Amino acid sequence: MTMYDIILKKRRGYELTDEEIKYAVDGFTDGSIPDYQMSALAMAICFNSMTDRETATLTFAMADSGDQLDLSEFGSMTCDKHSTGGVGDKTSLIVAPLVASCGGVFAKMSGRGLGHTGGTIDKLESIRGYRTELSEEEFLEQTRKIGICVIGQTGNMTPADKKLYALRDVTATVDSIPLIASSVMSKKLAAGAKSIVLDVKAGSGAFMSDAESAKVLAEKMVEIGRRCGRNVSALITNMDMPLGKCVGNSLEVLEAISVLKGETKGELRELCLELASTLLSMCHEISHDNARKMAENALDSGSAFEKFKQWISAQGGNADWADNTDLFPKAQYSLEVLSPADGVIQHMNTAQIGRASSSLGAGRMKKGDPIDLEAGIIIEKKTGDEVRKGELLATLYSNKQETLLNSSIIYTDALSISDEPVEKPKLIFDKV
Amino acid sequence: MTMYDIILKKRRGYELTDEEIKYAVDGFTDGSIPDYQMSALAMAICFNSMTDRETATLTFAMADSGDQLDLSEFGSMTCDKHSTGGVGDKTSLIVAPLVASCGGVFAKMSGRGLGHTGGTIDKLESIRGYRTELSEEEFLEQTRKIGICVIGQTGNMTPADKKLYALRDVTATVDSIPLIASSVMSKKLAAGAKSIVLDVKAGSGAFMSDAESAKVLAEKMVEIGRRCGRNVSALITNMDMPLGKCVGNSLEVLEAISVLKGETKGELRELCLELASTLLSMCHEISHDNARKMAENALDSGSAFEKFKQWISAQGGNADWADNTDLFPKAQYSLEVLSPADGVIQHMNTAQIGRASSSLGAGRMKKGDPIDLEAGIIIEKKTGDEVRKGELLATLYSNKQETLLNSSIIYTDALSISDEPVEKPKLIFDKV
Repeated sequence: MTMYDIILKKRRGYELTDEEIKYAVDGFTDGSIPDYQMSALAMAICFNSMTDRETATLTFAMADSGDQLDLSEFGSMTCDKHSTGGVGDKTSLIVAPLVASCGGVFAKMSGRGLGHTGGTIDKLESIRGYRTELSEEEFLEQTRKIGICVIGQTGNMTPADKKLYALRDVTATVDSIPLIASSVMSKKLAAGAKSIVLDVKAGSGAFMSDAESAKVLAEKMVEIGRRCGRNVSALITNMDMPLGKCVGNSLEVLEAISVLKGETKGELRELCLELASTLLSMCHEISHDNARKMAENALDSGSAFEKFKQWISAQGGNADWADNTDLFPKAQYSLEVLSPADGVIQHMNTAQIGRASSSLGAGRMKKGDPIDLEAGIIIEKKTGDEVRKGELLATLYSNKQETLLNSSIIYTDALSISDEPVEKPKLIFDKV
Repeated sequence: MTMYDIILKKRRGYELTDEEIKYAVDGFTDGSIPDYQMSALAMAICFNSMTDRETATLTFAMADSGDQLDLSEFGSMTCDKHSTGGVGDKTSLIVAPLVASCGGVFAKMSGRGLGHTGGTIDKLESIRGYRTELSEEEFLEQTRKIGICVIGQTGNMTPADKKLYALRDVTATVDSIPLIASSVMSKKLAAGAKSIVLDVKAGSGAFMSDAESAKVLAEKMVEIGRRCGRNVSALITNMDMPLGKCVGNSLEVLEAISVLKGETKGELRELCLELASTLLSMCHEISHDNARKMAENALDSGSAFEKFKQWISAQGGNADWADNTDLFPKAQYSLEVLSPADGVIQHMNTAQIGRASSSLGAGRMKKGDPIDLEAGIIIEKKTGDEVRKGELLATLYSNKQETLLNSSIIYTDALSISDEPVEKPKLIFDKV
C-alpha cells in the first residue's frame, strides 16, 4: 500500500478501503506521509467526495490518532453539544447547566475561538476566577459531584484532525462535506459523550450559506455519529442574523445569565430549549415532548440557574456575579449606531457584523492574540424590525476608543434598510 | 494575490490570469510557495483542466524559470525534435544528421533516460570518445561549423518544471493534458529552437494508450508552441510495438547507422523521413512533398551519413566505428527466445518488452544508476508476423548472464500468439 496509489484511487473516483484510510491518517499524523501528498488527497476528496463508510472510517481514524476522554464511568448520561459557529452564539452557556440540572452529564473540553468573538472558554473567563485549566482528575471529580464541568482543551486530542485542518486551511480544501463532517465528528468522538446534539448554522454568518446544504452536512454528521455508536441529532438553525442581542464575550455571558434567570424570552431561549430537549430526549430515552417539558421546567423553576451558579463556583468563579450582574466590568467606551433612514431591516450581513465585533477587540485574528472581554455589540433592531431615522440600532463597546467609528461604519454597512415589508425570519429550519 | 485564492479559483473551475499563473510558478520555484499548496493546485488542474491560454502561460513561466539556450544567431533554421518516449525509439540519432545535412541546425541538449534504455546521450556514449559535455562556447562553435551538436543538459534549465514534475510524480497528478503539455513544451522553449516536431506515441509502450488521446495531447502542445512563437507540428505514431528491430543503447546506434547507410528500410526509416521532412518543411518554408524529397535524397546520396560521421568526429567520437560497425563492443552473453507455438503474433505488450530490456541492464531504475551499453534485444518477429514453434523471436544480450533467463520469460509473456490473422499495424496514425 502506498500513499501514491491511495491518491490515484480517489482521484479516479474509487472508494477507499478502511485500511487505506487508516494508512493515510496514521502516516500523515506521524509525519511519514508528507503534507504535499495529503493536500493532493484532500483536493481529490473535494472533487470525488467520500461515501458514508469512508467518512466514518476517516472520522474514527482521526479520533483514534491521539488522547480520548474516557467518560464511561458516567454511563449513558453524558451529553455534548456542537455548533458549527455563528455570531452571538452563546447557547453552550445555557444548554450545559440546563441539561445538567435535568440529570444529563456535561463534561466538556472546549476550544478557544478565532474570529468575531472568543470561544466558550474565553467567554467563561469574563467571570473573575473561573479556572479553565483543571487536571483530568479535578475535571472528572467535579463532574461526579455536580454533573457539569467545562474546561479548555488539554492533552493531545485528535492531532490528525488538527494537522489536517491546518493543511486544508491553506490549500483551499476546507469546504468539503466529508472533510468537514469528519473533522467535527472526530473531535466529538474523542470528547467521549454518548449523546450529541449538533447545531448546524445556515445563513450569512455561517459556514453553510443555505439551509439545504447545511442539512446535507447535518445528515452526514448524524450518520457518521451513529456508525460510531453515538446518539446524534442535529438542528439546522438560522444564522442569517446574529443569535439574540449580544455579541462579545462578557456581553454574551450577561445575556446567557438573563435567559437562565428567566428574564429574557425569545429566540435565544427557544433555541436553547430545543437543543437541551434534544439531548435530554436522547440520554433519558424519553419523547421530545416530555424532554421539552423537563427543560422548560428547569428554566422556569430556576434550577438551571442554580446549576449554573454551582458550576461557576465549583470552577473558582464568583457566582455572586450571576446574581448581581452589575459586578461585571464594562468597556470604557461605547458608541450608539443610529438608523440612517426610516424603513424595515431587510437583511443583516451577519459575517460582517462579526467583523465589526472583531474590530472592536472582541475576537482574535490568530491563535494566542489577546482578547478584549468587555468589547462587543448590543443589538436593538434585527431583520424584520421597523426602524425610524435616528433610532438606536445597536451600541458598540470597546476599551479602545479608536475602534468605535470604524466598527460603526462596518456595522451600518452590514444592514440593508428599505420600505419593503419583511417576514420575521425562522429560527429553526429543520431537524435531523 | 495569494496562492490560497489561486487554488480556490481553479478548484471552482475558473480561468486563472497570467499574473496568477506566474505568481504560482515563481513562488514555487523560489520556495516561497510550499509543495503542499502546489500539489493541491496540480490536483485541482487535473480535475478542472486549463484553457490553451492558461497552459501557454504556464509553459512560458516554467521556460522562464531558469537558463534558456540562445540560438538566435542561427536565425530561423534551428530545429528540435521531441518524442514522448517509447521502446526502440532511436529516431533522434537519424533525424538530427539528416536535417543538418539538409541545412537545418540541430543544436540540442538532451537528457539521460530512465526506464527501458538510456536516453539519446547514453546511446551516443556507446561510441568510444563521444563527448557529451561541452562548454556552451564549444557547443555553439561546433554548431556554427557543422550545423549539429548534441550534448547532455547543462546549467539550470526549467527548474520550475523539474520541481513540479518531481512533485506530480509522487502526488498522482502526472496524467493531466495541460500539465504534460506544459512540461514538455517548457523544455522545448528553453532549448531555443524555432521549429519543433513532436513525436507523440500511442499504444502499450507509450504514456498515451490510444491514438485519440495522444492526438488531444499533440494538439495542445502544438497550440502552446504556436502561442509562444514557435513552429510546431506533431506526428501521432504507433508505440503498440517497439520501433524497428533493436532495443538497447549500442544496439540502437547500430540500427540507426544502418538506416543512415541506406541498408535498413521499413518503418524506422519511414518515420525518420517523416519527422525530418516535417522539420525541413517548417524551417525552409517549403511544401511537405519537397521537404520529403530533400530528406530522401539526403539519405540515399549518403550525405546524411556523412553528416553523422562529421558530427561524431567533431564531438570526439571515433567515426570509423560508423563505417565498420564490427568495432562496437558486443555483450558477453546472449540468449535466443524461440516461439512457443505456431501462429501469428497478435500483440506485443511493449512496456513489458521495455522491462525485459531494462532487466538485461540496458536501462536505469533511478538517476545515476550505471547502464550496460551493450545490453538489449534484437527483435526478429513483430505484430502480424507468422511464426512457427521453435522459430527465433528475438535475441537477448547482456553482460550479466544471470539476467537472461528471467528477461526471456518477461519477453515471451509480452507476446500473444494465436491463429487469428492480424493486420500489419499502422506506423503513423495522424498529423497535427
